[in-house]
Parts: sequence; C-alpha cells; structure tokens
Amino acid sequence: MKCEHKPYLRRVHYYETDQMGIVHHANDIRWFEEARVDFMDQWGLPYEELEKDGILMPVTHVEVAYLLPLTFGETVEIVTALVFFNGIRAVFHYEVYTEKDRKLAVKGESGHCFLDAASRRPLNLQKRRPDFCAAAQDMLAGFADNEEKHKIGKRRTI
Amino acid sequence: MKCEHKPYLRRVHYYETDQMGIVHHANDIRWFEEARVDFMDQWGLPYEELEKDGILMPVTHVEVAYLLPLTFGETVEIVTALVFFNGIRAVFHYEVYTEKDRKLAVKGESGHCFLDAASRRPLNLQKRRPDFCAAAQDMLAGFADNEEKHKIGKRRTI
Amino acid sequence: MKCEHKPYLRRVHYYETDQMGIVHHANDIRWFEEARVDFMDQWGLPYEELEKDGILMPVTHVEVAYLLPLTFGETVEIVTALVFFNGIRAVFHYEVYTEKDRKLAVKGESGHCFLDAASRRPLNLQKRRPDFCAAAQDMLAGFADNEEKHKIGKRRTI
Amino acid sequence: MKCEHKPYLRRVHYYETDQMGIVHHANDIRWFEEARVDFMDQWGLPYEELEKDGILMPVTHVEVAYLLPLTFGETVEIVTALVFFNGIRAVFHYEVYTEKDRKLAVKGESGHCFLDAASRRPLNLQKRRPDFCAAAQDMLAGFADNEEKHKIGKRRTI
Repeated sequence: MKCEHKPYLRRVHYYETDQMGIVHHANDIRWFEEARVDFMDQWGLPYEELEKDGILMPVTHVEVAYLLPLTFGETVEIVTALVFFNGIRAVFHYEVYTEKDRKLAVKGESGHCFLDAASRRPLNLQKRRPDFCAAAQDMLAGFADNEEKHKIGKRRTI
Repeated sequence: MKCEHKPYLRRVHYYETDQMGIVHHANDIRWFEEARVDFMDQWGLPYEELEKDGILMPVTHVEVAYLLPLTFGETVEIVTALVFFNGIRAVFHYEVYTEKDRKLAVKGESGHCFLDAASRRPLNLQKRRPDFCAAAQDMLAGFADNEEKHKIGKRRTI
Repeated sequence: MKCEHKPYLRRVHYYETDQMGIVHHANDIRWFEEARVDFMDQWGLPYEELEKDGILMPVTHVEVAYLLPLTFGETVEIVTALVFFNGIRAVFHYEVYTEKDRKLAVKGESGHCFLDAASRRPLNLQKRRPDFCAAAQDMLAGFADNEEKHKIGKRRTI
Repeated sequence: MKCEHKPYLRRVHYYETDQMGIVHHANDIRWFEEARVDFMDQWGLPYEELEKDGILMPVTHVEVAYLLPLTFGETVEIVTALVFFNGIRAVFHYEVYTEKDRKLAVKGESGHCFLDAASRRPLNLQKRRPDFCAAAQDMLAGFADNEEKHKIGKRRTI
C-alpha cells in the first residue's frame, strides 16, 4: 500500500488563543497528537488497539518551529509522516498548513518509544506485534515516495 | 479540629488567557480542582491516598459564576469548603478572590461521587473508609463555623 | 428560517483524558464553546464577525452535569440550542451524546453578556446589531420547535 | 548582579495527567512558560511590563526531551537559564527536576523574538529598551557562572 493518507483538517478553537491574539504554542503539540492518531487510523493501526493490547507509545522528545501565527476560526491542514521506525523507536514529522493559502505555518517532530503497559519497560514491537511493523514499513515507504514527489518532510526538519 | 485551612494561592498564567485578554473560563474548573486537592491535603486526607486505595472521586456536576475578569500575572486566593457529605456524595464550594483588593471574582461548586476503581461502581465511603468520613465531618463542621464568622459559602451559591 | 442546524461532531482526544482513564471534566466547557461557535456559524452569525465589529460575548456562568464517562477515540455529537436572548444576555444549552449508541453523556448551559471591546462595558445588541437579534429570534424559534418535536433541552436543565 | 535566582517550584496537577497515568507531554511547554515568567520577574524584568510597553515576545521554537515520567501530586523544580540574547532573539533553557530525589526528568529550550505589538513587526530590544538588554546581559553572565559551578545547561541540550 502506498501513502495516500489524507491530511488532518482542524479548525482553530477560541480557547486555543492567548492574549497575544494567536494560538498559544503549547497547542501545536496537541495538534500533532491528533494528527498522529488520525494518521495511524488511516494506516489501519489505531492507537486505541495498541493500548488495548497493553502497549504504550509515550513521547520521548518533541521539536516545533513556529513560522506563522495562527488565529481563531481558520482551518489548518496537518500533513503527517513516519520518518523513522525500527521496532524500538519511532519518529513522526508534522507540517501544519493554513487551509486558505497553503502556507507552511508550523513544522515539528515527535519521538516515541514502546512500553509494556504493565511493567512500564521498553519493548520491541518487532517481536510483540509484527503486524504493526509491517504497517510501519508501508508508512515509511509512503513517506519516501512523498518525499520525492512533494518534498514534504526531511529526516531532521529543525 | 476546627477549619483553619489556608486559602490556596495561585498566579494566573499566560497560557490561561485567551484573545479576550482575560482568563479563559474553562480554567476556573481546573483551579477548583487544584484548590480541592490542596484542601484535602490540609485536612489530612490527600486525594492521592484515596486513589492508591482504589477509590475514585469523579465530578458529577460543576457550576461557575464569573463575576470579574482575571488577568495574567495577578494572584488569586481560593477559599474552599466542603458543604455536603454523606458518604455517597460530596459537594465543595469555591470562592476565588483577587489577592490585591480581595474582591470576589469567581464562585462555584463541584459535586462528586465515589467509585471503586476496579469495578467503576459507586461505593459508600462510610463503609470503606470510616477515617475519611470522620475527616469529612470535621471539614463540614469547620465550614459551618466559617459560614457564621466570615459569611463564606452557602448551600447553593448559584 | 427553522432550526435545522446539524449537531457538532467531535472526536475525543487523548490529551483530553486524565489518569482516571476518562475525559477530564474541564474539557466539556471547551466543547461547549466549539459547539456554540459552530452553531453561530450555521445561523449565519459567525462569532469572529462579532469580535471584528468590536463586540465581545464573555461567559457569565456555566453549569455542567456529567452523566456518563467518555473515553479516548469515541465520537460525540453535541446539540446546541439558544434558549434565552434579550439583547443584553443570552443562554445556550448543550447536550453531548455518544455517537455510537446515542446516549446522553453530558448536558449543560452557558450564560453570556455582550461587551463593547474597547470600553469593556455592557451593550445592548438590539441597538448595536439588529441583524444579530433577528438571527437570534430565529434561533429561539427553532429551539421552541425542536423542544416540541424532539424533547431536547428545557429552560433549566440542571 | 550574579545569577542567584531561585528555581521555580510547582506541583503536578491532576488535570495535567492523561490516561497513561503520567503528565501529558504538552504541559511541559506550559511549565517552561511559567518558569520563564518567574525567571524574568526575579531578574527585575516582568514580562507584563514588556507587554504594557507594547512589546511581545512570541515563541519561535521549542524542544523538549522527556527523560522520566512525572506523576500527579509530586513537586518539580524548574531551573531556567537565558543562554542566548542579542536584542533580536533570545533562547532559554529549562531543566525540570523531581523535588524528592533531584533527578532530571525533563529538559528543553525555547526560542523567542521581539515584536512591536501594534505593527507585529520584529524589533531590536537594544534600541527600544536598553534597560532590558542590560538585565539580559546580567542573566547571561549568571548563566555562564552557573554553568561552570553547577554544570546546568549547555548551548544545545537536545
């Protein structure tokens, strides 16, 4: 399967603004999470299922670059890509575009590991859920395709 | 023991404002939670311990009246009172004062029940944790005292 | 025009849960805001336009009753109604249903006044924006219709 | 003046946890903001005053590394340092320690520029507020001192 996932569309909420009149910068981290969950759904691997199977995917690092201010009421389009995956760690990239004029407003990445929910110890997804790893390989391949075609994402954006 | 608990002091954070230039109204609900946790700590019944003992105290209702706008950087003082408790349900009252000129800015209440964490079924705290109920009776008595002395709180503020 | 507005659909985000494993109760206040903004959009009176015209609509009170726990990943449907409006004050009602089995999970209301953004003084929308008031009368009429047909909402839910 | 600022102490709130049972990763960005505001207060340059003078200091990038999970009820100690400042841009570093056993739980940085609030155009603080720049030079010197003494912070933590 090739990466034909749809971008994640999202309106900016009033409660996400601060007194500067623009979106507060902590919210982008939350949008990345929404986009990542949506992305995993589209690839046939809902995050809910991972947790139901006793696997957690906590965040180990995030990076965000804020390029343009975003304001209440506008719609953003978030493009997500899995750019690294080896069964132990995964890295996702995110690009947030304004829907109106397709300008890149925010870009960032998040790193993750996998834990056994009961013991809270790291696990290798390759052993525990080979099906997930196959899906992840598809995602990575899709990313490579997209990278060539659309120039989205790079191994290290920031 | 008499109710001599100290009000909960709290600065208004930048990220709690919205583009109206004042605190967004959802944050007051969170402040009530902070004040309630602090209040239970002061009464010798930390909420953490309840959860460690397999008891949850979810919120069944909230009411908030916003009287004055609050702004970034100012300090608020939150006075909490337990105004109803019967082992099955509990109701807390909150009054948020500006520290600077002691004006009442926000008042509200929250209702709670008690659940067994494993089964998620209601439980009677009178049976499960009689020590909590004794502490709660002290809190209620303290509230009655305070009500007389300082005119804080009423059974239904709003 | 009759009230044929569509309910507001909304997925529950991971970051909206707390360690109880369900949606934290402060988030419902934010959902009400999202639903209210969507509702005003549908009635042809975007909140953005009010603010662009120098009018604020701050929240004066909220009430929420939590009937059923909501969990990450599920979709909720929020039905909004304007139940009171006189140019000085407005009250909206909200009912949050689970999409899956249409159970009422949360209900609540929010009260609002209107302020001049520059002076922060109350204003009468009847004088300042008669077009808004006409739209509001439509919303109220729609509510009355719906109330009869679907038994949604009541003047005071809680 | 030497950097003798006190770390920022902060309890973890219940509403900051998610269903993983630990602090949700978006909250650390907010804690950095709280710590930065407190740090600027201590250096005699309250952020409120900058805004009152028509100057904004928006965030241009953030980076966070999550080393240890944090849980409800514990207290964290946040050490802040200004590590770069040239009148056009500023970079702060943050280290979040558990109060109990002084373990480094989170580290990160935030980048900022300065804008004229009215025009939203970049400004040079050296010209607009030389007093701020003097304070900033003190902060930087304090950082260099601390770096040597306590090994806190480095130009690029992550």
